[in-house]
Amino acid sequence: MQIQLKAIEGGICAPKGYKAAGIHCGIRKNKFKKDLALITSDKRASVAAVFTTNKVKGAPIAVTRENIKDGYASAIICNSGNANTCAPNGAQIARDTCALTAEALGIDAADVIVSSTGVIGEAMSIEPFKAGIPTLVKHLSENGSDDAAHAIMTTDTEKKEAAFSFELGGKECRIAGIAKGSGMINPNMATMLCFITTDVAITPALLQKALSNDILDTFNQIWIDGDTSTNDTVALMANGMAGNAEITEEGLDYAVFCGALSAVTSRLSRKIAKDGEGASKLIECVVSGAPDKQTARIVSKSVISSNLFKAAVFGRDANWGRALCAIGYSKADFDAGNIDVVLSSEVGSVKVCSHSEYSPYSEEEASEILGADEIKVLVDLHLGDASAAAFGCDLTYEYVRINGDYRS
Amino acid sequence: MQIQLKAIEGGICAPKGYKAAGIHCGIRKNKFKKDLALITSDKRASVAAVFTTNKVKGAPIAVTRENIKDGYASAIICNSGNANTCAPNGAQIARDTCALTAEALGIDAADVIVSSTGVIGEAMSIEPFKAGIPTLVKHLSENGSDDAAHAIMTTDTEKKEAAFSFELGGKECRIAGIAKGSGMINPNMATMLCFITTDVAITPALLQKALSNDILDTFNQIWIDGDTSTNDTVALMANGMAGNAEITEEGLDYAVFCGALSAVTSRLSRKIAKDGEGASKLIECVVSGAPDKQTARIVSKSVISSNLFKAAVFGRDANWGRALCAIGYSKADFDAGNIDVVLSSEVGSVKVCSHSEYSPYSEEEASEILGADEIKVLVDLHLGDASAAAFGCDLTYEYVRINGDYRS
Repeated sequence: MQIQLKAIEGGICAPKGYKAAGIHCGIRKNKFKKDLALITSDKRASVAAVFTTNKVKGAPIAVTRENIKDGYASAIICNSGNANTCAPNGAQIARDTCALTAEALGIDAADVIVSSTGVIGEAMSIEPFKAGIPTLVKHLSENGSDDAAHAIMTTDTEKKEAAFSFELGGKECRIAGIAKGSGMINPNMATMLCFITTDVAITPALLQKALSNDILDTFNQIWIDGDTSTNDTVALMANGMAGNAEITEEGLDYAVFCGALSAVTSRLSRKIAKDGEGASKLIECVVSGAPDKQTARIVSKSVISSNLFKAAVFGRDANWGRALCAIGYSKADFDAGNIDVVLSSEVGSVKVCSHSEYSPYSEEEASEILGADEIKVLVDLHLGDASAAAFGCDLTYEYVRINGDYRS
Repeated sequence: MQIQLKAIEGGICAPKGYKAAGIHCGIRKNKFKKDLALITSDKRASVAAVFTTNKVKGAPIAVTRENIKDGYASAIICNSGNANTCAPNGAQIARDTCALTAEALGIDAADVIVSSTGVIGEAMSIEPFKAGIPTLVKHLSENGSDDAAHAIMTTDTEKKEAAFSFELGGKECRIAGIAKGSGMINPNMATMLCFITTDVAITPALLQKALSNDILDTFNQIWIDGDTSTNDTVALMANGMAGNAEITEEGLDYAVFCGALSAVTSRLSRKIAKDGEGASKLIECVVSGAPDKQTARIVSKSVISSNLFKAAVFGRDANWGRALCAIGYSKADFDAGNIDVVLSSEVGSVKVCSHSEYSPYSEEEASEILGADEIKVLVDLHLGDASAAAFGCDLTYEYVRINGDYRS
């Protein structure tokens, strides 16, 4: 299905009724790095969220789960600099953060989503929040997306925003998101956070269904280093202010909404992968000809997860044998006897493997292709009609430097 | 059970009745690097083997599988420099290699185990084998382990040998192995190969059982970069020349043999991990207090597999949060609420995490401990009595350099 989507400005505040802000409140020592973000909806919004599958979880996750149990929320508060994970008294601090936010906004504390990213295992103080949250609320604005997107960053080198408009039953609707990922401040984890806003009217149940399905092909297909953070969170608010007929079933409107959601999450997924720690380029693997969707997902993710292949791409080495090897050890069951592999970028395309064997190509041309900053690895299994993509980055000296640096 | 084991000299030829040789036959361009190894048993031996689980497999694997179907073999021929994988006519070349070896030794071609490691997807010629195998047979000697161990190496920086003696029913028995792993020549895979000889008398079925069980706690617990090669092979020959009463059931003798086998494979696993590509140190994670063995294996492997933790150890950064995170995302189901983590080396030990929370320690002391070239990460889950270990290495600039270098 083809959806009419238009990329728009305004970031997370592009949809109607949303404001955002980001300030430095003192969780980080560096005064020039914002560390507290707030996103609010003028109207209580349907809400959906997905969280890390790590058995060790940041304290904010349980609090957020509790708060969104009823399917609604009005605000998202998120700090960077401390993950509030394995930290003494963490649950209380997360609850207090919600209470402070609710008080400053004049809403119910149970309508606040709370999230943290940064150092694991260090004590966290509520003091910076006490002073910071009232200031943060004063800064709320429809132009606040940029500040909020910066405030949730850790060692991300770029802020990550996406916004689109589309139509539902003649009404203009909007959807937008900000994300952070794969950056870090010593000593901690690369947490992925994404907050999405839309003015579409949709029930919480369908919103959750849309989000839960969507991440299978977007955020879950990102691989930087295989380390699943303790704090990963994707939260999606839908406040209905676009005025469309509320989506209450899986019809055409739902399909259009899912398409628009996917546009935001796919774009943010690519941005996160491209900005992976130490990365110099995006590697996107598209698997087609798979017997089923799940196989396509597994195989594409296996290719972009291979340290050997990631390092080869960094070195502009068309080492297709490593891609084929990664396809072979992927945890999917299929016949690996008739695989084609094409390397592609804006510079050109070259087939390096045909029927699972070497296909003559120019090493020089392949190296040129791999010199671009967005690389596609196109794999055709020749077994069926299903396809999927996965998003990763190259493995560089810089990755080792960032993660090997002694904390100081 | 405590077994009396004595480390001995002689490598793969230490057990009675084995000879070995290694020469340069021309598969590699570098004349000073041996590329062809042969191991023979004077008596046809019981044989067991395990192979890569990769769906893309080197051509020699199918040929070897066929040849050892009857449970017996007399010789192992192995080349480095070309993996004979995704190579045109690969199966025929593997079969011809067995035929040439059999002819030169005066044995049946169906008693030859064939193995290859090196470049994937490049054409392979039988010519170097034709000239090389007769020469190789002339070089066979009881002092040939060193040459054979060198001939199977790729970018391994050290040869890997282990040999032990022990007693069965008053008879002195011996078991030994050579291995290679985690090195590579551009452009190819890091293949793990291990060949083990023993003079114990044991049925092929029990030999296979012993090997299949053993690798769960040894070779399968090694992680360098998560890339499962297309050619991994462990082959074990037992020629019975020690004169012990043949092991035909799982009694005491079988248990002693399994213990001796584990001594060889554990030692070789540590050597492979420590010599991982670009590695500067061995990281061994020992998980105790697990509810069951499988959970202990999964959790220990998850810790030494974490790129973030591997890079932290390289930087001598006691970033225990990364270890706890890796424990949390491991694919095992258990309560992660009461975990202790101790970092240990010859320099000393320090508890960095207690009850899944920060345990006060000196960063300086921890950094000293991580400065050693063999690091232990001791994890206690406090849930049961099971334990297991896993073997890995740090992630270094050198890993990226080795694997990112453009082929030339």
